[in-house]
Amino acid sequence: MSGWVAVAGLGPGAEMLVTPEVRAALAQATDVVGYIPYVARVAPRAGLALHPSDNRVELERARLALDLAADGKRVVVVSSGDPGVFAMASALFEALEGRDAAPEIRILPGITAMLAAAARLGAPLGHDFCAINLSDNLKPWALIEKRLRLAAEADFAMAFYNPRSKSRPEGFARVLEILREACGPDRLISFARAVSTPDEAIRTVTLAEARPEMADMRTVVILGNSATRRVGPWVYTPRSVP
Amino acid sequence: MSGWVAVAGLGPGAEMLVTPEVRAALAQATDVVGYIPYVARVAPRAGLALHPSDNRVELERARLALDLAADGKRVVVVSSGDPGVFAMASALFEALEGRDAAPEIRILPGITAMLAAAARLGAPLGHDFCAINLSDNLKPWALIEKRLRLAAEADFAMAFYNPRSKSRPEGFARVLEILREACGPDRLISFARAVSTPDEAIRTVTLAEARPEMADMRTVVILGNSATRRVGPWVYTPRSVP
Repeated sequence: MSGWVAVAGLGPGAEMLVTPEVRAALAQATDVVGYIPYVARVAPRAGLALHPSDNRVELERARLALDLAADGKRVVVVSSGDPGVFAMASALFEALEGRDAAPEIRILPGITAMLAAAARLGAPLGHDFCAINLSDNLKPWALIEKRLRLAAEADFAMAFYNPRSKSRPEGFARVLEILREACGPDRLISFARAVSTPDEAIRTVTLAEARPEMADMRTVVILGNSATRRVGPWVYTPRSVP
Repeated sequence: MSGWVAVAGLGPGAEMLVTPEVRAALAQATDVVGYIPYVARVAPRAGLALHPSDNRVELERARLALDLAADGKRVVVVSSGDPGVFAMASALFEALEGRDAAPEIRILPGITAMLAAAARLGAPLGHDFCAINLSDNLKPWALIEKRLRLAAEADFAMAFYNPRSKSRPEGFARVLEILREACGPDRLISFARAVSTPDEAIRTVTLAEARPEMADMRTVVILGNSATRRVGPWVYTPRSVP
């Protein structure tokens, strides 16, 4: 039997947002590997081994998946959202470096948090935009600040992942300061928490009104560009720039 | 009977990448509105009216959807990929401006082209990135050039939609020139055409090797950042910046 690894995106939370492709991979799997709350989303069944692991051990998790596949297992590595956006796909390829043999690998896309959030809000990412991971675990904080300033100068709408954690609560306050300075107080900013789950909460305010505690690690934050506006309960970015 | 509009993302092409949520909306619809090739992806059935329309009439199409919903119809506006990324969601909200009454509106996310392409390539968007529509139908060309230069300075990976059309074949050649100048000749660039369809074609080259004719309007182009590398047949961007 030939083993394989599929790195699968479970989407933001709702079962209705899991693709049939990911469903099919899970149905064929012998092993599921991933961060504890994502593995908890997979229904247990006979013949399926679950390997939940803690946060911040992405490389070890990727190595485990490759080792299991080398032993002939059919392994699904589960990510929330899309596996290619601040999730497990890059970690898997990092773990592959220097190995002599690779199993069959497939990356199965999913609905990433910013697109689920944008859909609930309206269409704030309807024009050119960027996605920035605000965690400085794996990059220098100065690079985050530089990217924020350049993205503001480019007038990109911006989606922020991992805006705020207990270990660095001050970082997001600084992000809001920089954005207020670069984009002005009236720019719209939306906080979308746990979209498509029972804990979903959505709010849109101006940068002047934004407070760090409006975000936590389950929140994706979307900043409009200079043209982003409200219509009724919706927030959208027009397609055109005059 | 109360009408509604759902703007739904059909994903990049494969049925296995259509979410159950979008499937369910199509099953409840009385009317489907969209660009001809996207409406062609919806199976005809008794009681379902199909309203295909040509390219570049997004606002008229959005108005039709709102009018049908005002008449009590259950309308699905179909987009390729995700409706919020260079697709119909923004057009719908533009069409809503100035109307006295709005029907129930839902935006149903889908797998957008860049994430389907990234999954096939490996994980080129595994670090901070931006998405730029290279069509200058709705924005000045100078703004595209400005955004390219700032995105390069920020060292974003970049995904380009609508890279090349018959009406402006010279634009993408200019984009490649700017990127070569800003990112150097060795930067990896991937061309992903019609991902997940029978016409799928994928290739990765350096900027020095890239030619405008490697892209057409069915291609999404992904440029790596300065750390993007190959491992085996894969292209990925490491999660960390030292």
